Amino acid sequence: MRLRNKPGASEELLQHPTIVIQNAETLKGKWSGIFGNNNPIHIEVGTGKGRFLTGMSQLHNDINYIGVEKYDSVIITALERILDAGVQNFKLLNEDVTNLVSYFEAGELDRVYINFTDPWPKNRHEKRRLTHEGFLRMYEQVMKKNGEIHFKTDNQALFEYSLHSFSKYGMILNNVSLDLHNSGIEGNIMTEYEEKFSSKGMRIYRCEAQFR
Amino acid sequence: MRLRNKPGASEELLQHPTIVIQNAETLKGKWSGIFGNNNPIHIEVGTGKGRFLTGMSQLHNDINYIGVEKYDSVIITALERILDAGVQNFKLLNEDVTNLVSYFEAGELDRVYINFTDPWPKNRHEKRRLTHEGFLRMYEQVMKKNGEIHFKTDNQALFEYSLHSFSKYGMILNNVSLDLHNSGIEGNIMTEYEEKFSSKGMRIYRCEAQFR
Repeated sequence: MRLRNKPGASEELLQHPTIVIQNAETLKGKWSGIFGNNNPIHIEVGTGKGRFLTGMSQLHNDINYIGVEKYDSVIITALERILDAGVQNFKLLNEDVTNLVSYFEAGELDRVYINFTDPWPKNRHEKRRLTHEGFLRMYEQVMKKNGEIHFKTDNQALFEYSLHSFSKYGMILNNVSLDLHNSGIEGNIMTEYEEKFSSKGMRIYRCEAQFR
Repeated sequence: MRLRNKPGASEELLQHPTIVIQNAETLKGKWSGIFGNNNPIHIEVGTGKGRFLTGMSQLHNDINYIGVEKYDSVIITALERILDAGVQNFKLLNEDVTNLVSYFEAGELDRVYINFTDPWPKNRHEKRRLTHEGFLRMYEQVMKKNGEIHFKTDNQALFEYSLHSFSKYGMILNNVSLDLHNSGIEGNIMTEYEEKFSSKGMRIYRCEAQFR
């Protein structure tokens, strides 16, 4: 993602503390209280401009969504979308995804979405891929038993790598689609990237990886 | 595969008992003796006309290959190829693949190849797919620990299903390729089908699934 600095973004984010959650370390184990209900909690790591979770939160009002995104310059758009849509079940966490265990208690999350993440194609950057074993271990720590990762990408090499990584970790691959937009799947909410890439005729790869 | 009856095929097969192995039930645990060495044994289930294993046996003379194929009308071509190539490390088993445990001892095989197998697209035929759990259990019985299945297909739905099936069985997916002929892989021996489909621009999917 090309990141332009957005003047005033940081200040704007601070002005909506009921949506852009501050001091998240103190909320570990208390996220249901933030949402005011006991619905399942799904997060998206690297939520970007928030189009995916805005669509999901409108479609599934019995699920609580949290978008984790470190860059002010894009999460500000997610904030604007939440305000426009008026949804109550979508919150933002303006933090790095490498620290999930600081913000969530063991078993607090039901699902993790990873959409069109940076492929980090060089071997020496393997550990930075959000489907690397190190991240899987972190997701597992904060998720319920048998929790699922729902993963979409247009990047063939990243998808191939991730199938290896998920299976090596012992996860079960469900609903694998090697060409999502020609698979007749229903209820798919597109991300910004997904619309751009699929409109160019590129394949979108998707799978659900479940912890045992 | 369209099967024409080949007059005289059955008789021809019987005339080459050192290649087309008869009474295989009596050879359980004794296949190294057939080959006259202790090299690893790799089999192909549904070997068809034998093009793949003919190429492999020429390329790797330190591996013993066995092609399992029930149809006389196609395995006869595999026999002709073996005779033409003059290879000593490629034998044929004119039997159904569902009975591998009758022919092989536990741990006798190192690898199973599954190439362009019937996708059996209907749900009610799932159990007939050669990557179904029932077959995986059978392969595991006759293979060494950490044995590998090497799987190629042009059929997207079968590949998606198989990724699920392998991972659910607890296998590790290695060297996944979602577009084999554009992946720079070396040493790939093409099957009859593979040449036909890939020449039409269709993707070939491949992976190695390893037992734990």
